[in-house]
Amino acid sequence: MNNIKIKKASGVIEDFSSRKLLDSLIRSGTDRDQAGEILEKITSEISPYMSTKRIYRLAQKYLRQFNRATGLRYSLKRGLMRLGPSGYPFEKYFGEIMRQYGYHVDVGIILEGKCVKHEIDVFAANDREVVSVECKYRNNAENAPDVKVAMYVHSRFQDLRPVMKARYPDRTFTGWLVTNTRFTSDAIQYAECMGLRMKSWRYPDGNSLEKMIESKKLYPVTVLSTLNSYQIRKLIDHRIILMKQLAQMDERDIRRLLSITGNKAAELKHQANELCFCE
Amino acid sequence: MNNIKIKKASGVIEDFSSRKLLDSLIRSGTDRDQAGEILEKITSEISPYMSTKRIYRLAQKYLRQFNRATGLRYSLKRGLMRLGPSGYPFEKYFGEIMRQYGYHVDVGIILEGKCVKHEIDVFAANDREVVSVECKYRNNAENAPDVKVAMYVHSRFQDLRPVMKARYPDRTFTGWLVTNTRFTSDAIQYAECMGLRMKSWRYPDGNSLEKMIESKKLYPVTVLSTLNSYQIRKLIDHRIILMKQLAQMDERDIRRLLSITGNKAAELKHQANELCFCE
Repeated sequence: MNNIKIKKASGVIEDFSSRKLLDSLIRSGTDRDQAGEILEKITSEISPYMSTKRIYRLAQKYLRQFNRATGLRYSLKRGLMRLGPSGYPFEKYFGEIMRQYGYHVDVGIILEGKCVKHEIDVFAANDREVVSVECKYRNNAENAPDVKVAMYVHSRFQDLRPVMKARYPDRTFTGWLVTNTRFTSDAIQYAECMGLRMKSWRYPDGNSLEKMIESKKLYPVTVLSTLNSYQIRKLIDHRIILMKQLAQMDERDIRRLLSITGNKAAELKHQANELCFCE
Repeated sequence: MNNIKIKKASGVIEDFSSRKLLDSLIRSGTDRDQAGEILEKITSEISPYMSTKRIYRLAQKYLRQFNRATGLRYSLKRGLMRLGPSGYPFEKYFGEIMRQYGYHVDVGIILEGKCVKHEIDVFAANDREVVSVECKYRNNAENAPDVKVAMYVHSRFQDLRPVMKARYPDRTFTGWLVTNTRFTSDAIQYAECMGLRMKSWRYPDGNSLEKMIESKKLYPVTVLSTLNSYQIRKLIDHRIILMKQLAQMDERDIRRLLSITGNKAAELKHQANELCFCE
């Protein structure tokens, strides 16, 4: 990539400087990591004697894409909060995520442990494994599930383990604790030490809740700020919890379900399509 | 005991009827079990040709004793509630109970478990055993500690176990969960299944919290309804938490500590003595 010539607006030819481009990306408000990624994408597309104007246009395109991802992630965080006020929509949503990952899923079932009965928020199974999930919906980040939550949930899975081992002798059994916000640091310390799997916003690295969502574009309908809470409840009650499902709905069904005009239904479907890149 | 003759007030001699006496005890408001116990005590003291008047006096004596025990137990239940509003006085009180049972006791210490640190409410040790106690003070019976509490507390003791085993290899280690009211039935079911020791009002049979208190007369100062909450706090702050300790205090010290008159201090000391049968 060194010594590629580019053409300035004035017609002057000069060497392309990746340093200069990086600096200008950072000046535009992109953080260093993002700027580095964008730079890489641009440089791979630069051809000899390309105009600086065209290079800037490329930069703008990638900046927009990155900002859109950042914006979508922000909407996702807020959208997860909007799954309240009760914990049930979040359980349903996480159940849907597991289903999209190929598990057979039951939401809100009672299972006998060795000692007592337990209500299991999401019970997911495939040919190789059985997963029992405890969901902790929180309507603000300050109320993060703490080590006491991790401890009682661990006891719950320990009580279920012998029953699961007997019922599914050929599959692994794991207990997951999932929240829409964060866990306290001692909850994480306890879980890692005990082998309890936890998932939250940005935890664990590379396999966090938002990574599970983003990598299959499983955005909840609550990311659409144009929907009010009545409409959200209507959709969730009818098992339309993913943007994907909304995007696949017939316009007329959307109109009827939400009691809105045809134009609004079309707009909603369009937005759903755009946001989840479903098509 | 059959066919013992007794003498009526009219001078008439007749056979003693335990049935008649039992009925009159029950009519006086005693419940059937208590009436049975009192009847047993009385019949063991009846001698031939004893007057019915004397028999009634015996009955009254035992009824008073039983009512006093019932009254004291009622005061104890209310006194345990008055150890609030925070949980700390109850921890201190239970620590004192363990001390009176011959343990070396620490209240409110931090211990490292295998995975995380834990705050231990009461840590009690003697030559043979080490006991880690979690205290759950409740200001009403409806808020009984449930199975989630039992589960997280069990996890806590499981995390402490390897550390305790290493530190005290020659002693047994047990975890206790103690509350001033009751536990929910599923909490009890879980604890019994898992080997977690729990103590509450009337649980377990024969070794419950109030039995531990009554058998050594370890009544808390809060059973004295004449003390207001300021005075209770003063006493507890000065480590006077048992009636026993109050009864053993110098009258002048009581006067100074609670800023009351000498007469009131003497009365308090007298009440403490009476209530705990300390002398």
